[in-house]
Amino acid sequence: MPLRVEIDRDLCHAWDAEDPLRGCRERFDLPDGVIYLDGNSLGVLPRSAAARLQDVIRREWGRDLIKSWTSAGWMALPAEVGGRIARLIGAQANEVTAADSTSVNYYKLAQAALALRPERRVIVSEAGDFPTDAYILQGLVAASGGRLQLKLVERTAIADALDADTALLALSHVHYKTGALHDMAVLTAAAHSAGAISLWDLSHSAGALEVDVKAAQADLAVGCGYKYLNGGPGAPGFIYVAEKLHAQVSAPIAGWIGHADPFAFADGFVPAGDVRQMLSGTPPILGLAALNEGLKTFDGVAMREVRAKSVRLASLFLDLAGERLAPLGFVAACPREAAARGSQVSLRHLRAESMMADLIAAGLVGDFRPPDLLRFGMTPLYTRYVDIFDAIDQIAHIAQRP
Amino acid sequence: MPLRVEIDRDLCHAWDAEDPLRGCRERFDLPDGVIYLDGNSLGVLPRSAAARLQDVIRREWGRDLIKSWTSAGWMALPAEVGGRIARLIGAQANEVTAADSTSVNYYKLAQAALALRPERRVIVSEAGDFPTDAYILQGLVAASGGRLQLKLVERTAIADALDADTALLALSHVHYKTGALHDMAVLTAAAHSAGAISLWDLSHSAGALEVDVKAAQADLAVGCGYKYLNGGPGAPGFIYVAEKLHAQVSAPIAGWIGHADPFAFADGFVPAGDVRQMLSGTPPILGLAALNEGLKTFDGVAMREVRAKSVRLASLFLDLAGERLAPLGFVAACPREAAARGSQVSLRHLRAESMMADLIAAGLVGDFRPPDLLRFGMTPLYTRYVDIFDAIDQIAHIAQRP
Repeated sequence: MPLRVEIDRDLCHAWDAEDPLRGCRERFDLPDGVIYLDGNSLGVLPRSAAARLQDVIRREWGRDLIKSWTSAGWMALPAEVGGRIARLIGAQANEVTAADSTSVNYYKLAQAALALRPERRVIVSEAGDFPTDAYILQGLVAASGGRLQLKLVERTAIADALDADTALLALSHVHYKTGALHDMAVLTAAAHSAGAISLWDLSHSAGALEVDVKAAQADLAVGCGYKYLNGGPGAPGFIYVAEKLHAQVSAPIAGWIGHADPFAFADGFVPAGDVRQMLSGTPPILGLAALNEGLKTFDGVAMREVRAKSVRLASLFLDLAGERLAPLGFVAACPREAAARGSQVSLRHLRAESMMADLIAAGLVGDFRPPDLLRFGMTPLYTRYVDIFDAIDQIAHIAQRP
Repeated sequence: MPLRVEIDRDLCHAWDAEDPLRGCRERFDLPDGVIYLDGNSLGVLPRSAAARLQDVIRREWGRDLIKSWTSAGWMALPAEVGGRIARLIGAQANEVTAADSTSVNYYKLAQAALALRPERRVIVSEAGDFPTDAYILQGLVAASGGRLQLKLVERTAIADALDADTALLALSHVHYKTGALHDMAVLTAAAHSAGAISLWDLSHSAGALEVDVKAAQADLAVGCGYKYLNGGPGAPGFIYVAEKLHAQVSAPIAGWIGHADPFAFADGFVPAGDVRQMLSGTPPILGLAALNEGLKTFDGVAMREVRAKSVRLASLFLDLAGERLAPLGFVAACPREAAARGSQVSLRHLRAESMMADLIAAGLVGDFRPPDLLRFGMTPLYTRYVDIFDAIDQIAHIAQRP
């Protein structure tokens, strides 16, 4: 294993110097003295966001007020933001919009999917997936008065759980704890074979992986604005509805912004033709404006490069962890194979919770998920190879403290 | 009619000098050269908002990142904002929270109300009310597969439309077009007599009137953050659930933030006990922070004073309009009696649309609602008597142009 002896801090510096994404780091305002491996929980501040928000607040809101709905493009902002996200996930611009929270969007699309298969009773999802998704589905089942059923199955049993009674297959593309990556194309095809609709939660893959909803023939998807998309705390989420379904889906929360002509103030709801019909209330302008700046950090960036660097960063982390952290009681809790992994690494340790608190205090930010998981996110636009090297140093140092 | 000859610009100045709320105008950054009578559509910029948002963005997000969920009180922000709104509408702090859009919140509470009366089939609401509310109710009816029915009745026929099959009475407190004000206590009592749940949309009354949900025994309410509450474009809305219903209601969009312990990441949904169970996704921090500053403009202000000034402003407008605008083809389209009116005046004119465009170009901002309505909002924290005097001058001037 010559790898072990060859990787040192200088080599990491050399990799950073050759990194085709090295210029992207300047697009962010990074905190001093911190190695931030938590962009999968909250993306860092884009350098342009503070000034842009000041302009939105002082000029667009403060001076131009109500006319900014047209003159500043506020009404068009969900579509503008949606268009930027569309490029990152392989969708068309008219298939993506930004609104509400991921949870609300997940609810809307789950409802829309169930309405497309009214004769079927079963929702299939993964056991132990991110709680909000399961809670939303549980809520739909509870509200159905016994008609619907939620089958939470292990990830290896998902394809076999699909049958002629399955209305909806609802999955996270990347698992929030383990970072394990589903094959979207294979599982969507399995859902379609069974006659079911697929709903993907891209919260941990959009902006980090080469997502291609069109190639996968995905039906519906949601995702998060404040993780890899750098949209700021509680940023609006996004909604993808494949064009093939635009004429069939109905808007579950049929608010005025989903109307074909909101400012006609007509008495009856007439849905906008495309993904816009999934919008409900007035667009959250401050959140959308910040998310738009977050998305601009991807300008000119190929997702292929992002994925390639993410894989290298995570492999470096896992190689170094295998060498230096395994002897200290750490166990890898994510797939070893890069192709089966999202953009995070997860380690288990019996003292994970207190250790993460100590790491954060020492300037290495990851996060803890109960009961014993340490998560570290790879965000290729601003994470350097040397950061990974230093992070392993820091973890080893903290773990060895008496 | 001595009133007619006595009101001049000097008198309006004198009233402004004596106005107990005169100091509040300094709490806002008002645009130069504009008379803004559209705070019922988008409230103006609070003076503290730009600096506060810079701090949220640069320090809380940019520097402290993920730890701000606790250290900067982000997780507590929905409750903090809710507490401020509670004071304005006569609720307890644990009965109000801020989240999502008004449309989404309206959907949630309508769903929750229907679940409380599963054996009843009818929703009663007002014909010609704000479209998003009607659209949402129409959507619920459509999704019910024929079980539910929406009765849209004229405002004078509402009480008579309630019967033993009514699940929900859903009304706007103040009508968005005419400014007509419902008696919340009387209609809530009528709903309760019929065994129905009441849902109030306070978008055009919270922050403008002496709303008292407790005295009215209102069950459920929503409202808008960006009108009289000055929360900024697309600000989060709010949700009120009376304490008496906390143990009975279920969360229709059961996301993780409505869970009793979100960060336990438990598999099963356990609702938070109070109004928090109506929260769904991650709180929209930028929007909530701006709304919080908007609400601080009410610090130390008694809603009794706000209402008293609103009535005087509107009466001044209508008196002057009767004298100077009626001869020019304007017809009042709001109740004459102050007690029956919210905080806006509405005029009809055959050339309303082009006239409003001309008024806005000349620096008087109200808004147009089809087919022939001009709306002017009274926002007592920053509207002066002299503004009303000048507005009438401006309207008369524009109307008389060849």
